[in-house]
Order: sequence, then structure tokens, then C-alpha cells
Amino acid sequence: MNFLEERILKDGQVREGDILKVDSFLNHQLDIALLDQIGEAFYEHFRGKNITRVLTVEASGIAIAVPTARRFGVPAVFAKKARSMNLDGDLYTSVVHSYTYNVDNVLTLSRRYIHADDNVLIVDDFMANGKAAQGLIDICGQAGAQVAGIGIAIEKGYQNGGRLLREAGYDLCSLAIVDQMQTDGTIRFRAQEFSGE
Amino acid sequence: MNFLEERILKDGQVREGDILKVDSFLNHQLDIALLDQIGEAFYEHFRGKNITRVLTVEASGIAIAVPTARRFGVPAVFAKKARSMNLDGDLYTSVVHSYTYNVDNVLTLSRRYIHADDNVLIVDDFMANGKAAQGLIDICGQAGAQVAGIGIAIEKGYQNGGRLLREAGYDLCSLAIVDQMQTDGTIRFRAQEFSGE
Repeated sequence: MNFLEERILKDGQVREGDILKVDSFLNHQLDIALLDQIGEAFYEHFRGKNITRVLTVEASGIAIAVPTARRFGVPAVFAKKARSMNLDGDLYTSVVHSYTYNVDNVLTLSRRYIHADDNVLIVDDFMANGKAAQGLIDICGQAGAQVAGIGIAIEKGYQNGGRLLREAGYDLCSLAIVDQMQTDGTIRFRAQEFSGE
Repeated sequence: MNFLEERILKDGQVREGDILKVDSFLNHQLDIALLDQIGEAFYEHFRGKNITRVLTVEASGIAIAVPTARRFGVPAVFAKKARSMNLDGDLYTSVVHSYTYNVDNVLTLSRRYIHADDNVLIVDDFMANGKAAQGLIDICGQAGAQVAGIGIAIEKGYQNGGRLLREAGYDLCSLAIVDQMQTDGTIRFRAQEFSGE
């Protein structure tokens, strides 16, 4: 097991409704040392990819993107979830359905902050059906930028987001893939090999 | 001038409607080295305050809170702006009006992530009328926690949020206080002294 799988077993909680609560360290209270380890793990995996920009979506993705971008020495940029009055009209947009909240979100990103010569690393805290990642991929495509890889902290492996992205050929690194979880606290992770283990 | 004032003059843009756009480095695209400097400046100001927790509000506040919490070696926690289906019912809440979007937001924070023995440093990227900070202060009060200080990247000094908090006795450190700005690009900062300058 890696550091994140161990932490999920220690502090994660499985709740009714397919909810894995990790809000004591990942997406409400933030364990900064753990976030740095996540950034380091993504760096180990994607360091050969000439990453020029780390892209995520607000809000909890920002906590992953900042230490990751620091490690690569590149800017981070986060897509916003609704059209902001403070954003210029000159935006890339992509409509993404959120199953958590059962609403359509419009992801928006200023055209100034992603370019055709970018090698983009997309990061986020969670992936289930992969809709948010696909929205960010869509935006990269609109910009003509290359998606060099996708780094996810926790993937729900029993949903199809990760499978579809891997089948499409993306370099997807999920630090913990939950293949099964039960409200009695049982969590089964997919076996993976990480460099440095 | 300090590093942030210099950056605002270099890359900030004043727009109609009292908007200071700093989205090329602070709240859309993120300059990680600059965020680290902000965290360091808050550490210099508040290092004697025995800070145990850094508190902010999603989304762009997270980018300020993460490097600040790293520098202090404490957890960060961010309030969410609406009741989330993934949050427990056991929440502190505070209603905050957003003038930017003309809506009432409910700030929510799990009772598990702030305690009566905490010395809290509240941080955010912007302060205008101070409503978000007041909502976070309200939540600290509900928890019985001490507000040890408030660190803001950019304060609009011609609005009354900062004045009211200083008059109420809070230790408010705003790294750049804009006293006047015009759409021709003129920005006047309030003179302040910072340690290390």
C-alpha cells in the first residue's frame, strides 16, 4: 500500500450513497504534508512529460494543483464552475454534469491561461465517472493544448471514468483506486506498482 | 512597495464596475512562487501568535491557505459556500451576502475541524466589505475558537471591511491595500511598513 491508501484506511469513512468521506485530510480540512506527497507522486510519474501547466477545477482540486505545480515549477490554473461576472467573455467552456449535486456545471477557463504549446497535467482529488476530467480535456482540445497526463488522488475504480480514459489512451495516474467499499469500513484497493515503493 | 504591490502594478488590470483583475497570478492562473511569498509574509507577521489552524473560504482562498498553512506547519481548512450533500449535518454555518454575485451564500464548516482551543489565522485573497471574513469570524465564535489574526492579500481600502475589523481590534494584515484605482490603470496603495523591507 502507498501513503494515500494507508491514510484512506486510517481516516476515510464509507457512508451510505456511495460516499467515501476523506474530508479530514483531503477536501475540507487539508493535511499539507499529505498534499505535498501527492504532488511528489505525480512528479515521479509525469516528470518525463515536459509538463508546462497544471490544470484543475475549483474548489478542492486547487489544494492538489498548488503543491503539484510547485513541484514541477510551472503555473497552476483552475477552471471555474459557473460563469463569473469577474471573468472576461473570452472563455473556453465545457458543460459537465455533476452527479453529486445533480446539476449541470459549466466549466470556464480564460483563453489567456492555456495555449496551443502547453503540455497540460490535469489533476483532481476524485474521479468517479470522469466527467470533470473529460470537461478539462475538452477545454484543452479547444485550446489546441496537449493533455500530457491526468493525476487523480482517489479513483472509484468500480465506476467507468478511469477505464474510459485509459482505453482512450490517456496516461492516467490514480494514487488510490477503490475497487470496492462497504459501509462497514471495508475498502479494497486495486493493486498497482509505484516507483519508489 | 512590497512584492505584491509591484505585481499588481505590473499585471493587475482595473476594469469598470470596481473590478481589480488579478487573475493572471492570484485567482485563476496561480503563480506558485508568489503564493509562497504571501504565505511567508503572513508567517512573518503572525509567527508570534501560536497559530494552530489556517481558515479560508473556497475557492480562491484555498490557494492562499495551502502555502500559508505549510509555512506554519498546521492544517488548513476551508469553509464551503453552500450546504453540500457530502457534508455531515453537524456543521457551523454563517450567512454571507456576496456583492460580486448578489446572492446570499451559506458558509459551512464541519464542527470536527475547528475547536475551542484553536488559534485561527483567517486568510483570503480579497477583502472589500469584509463579509466573508466576518462570516469566518462568526464561525470561529460558534466554535469558541480564538481569531488570532486575519491575513488578506489585497484589501480594497476604500471600502469599509478592513476599517471595521481594525476598529473591532482584530490583527488584520493586508499585504496590499488599494486606496484608489482608476480604469486608466492608476492604482494608489496605502503606505504600510512590513518587516524585512
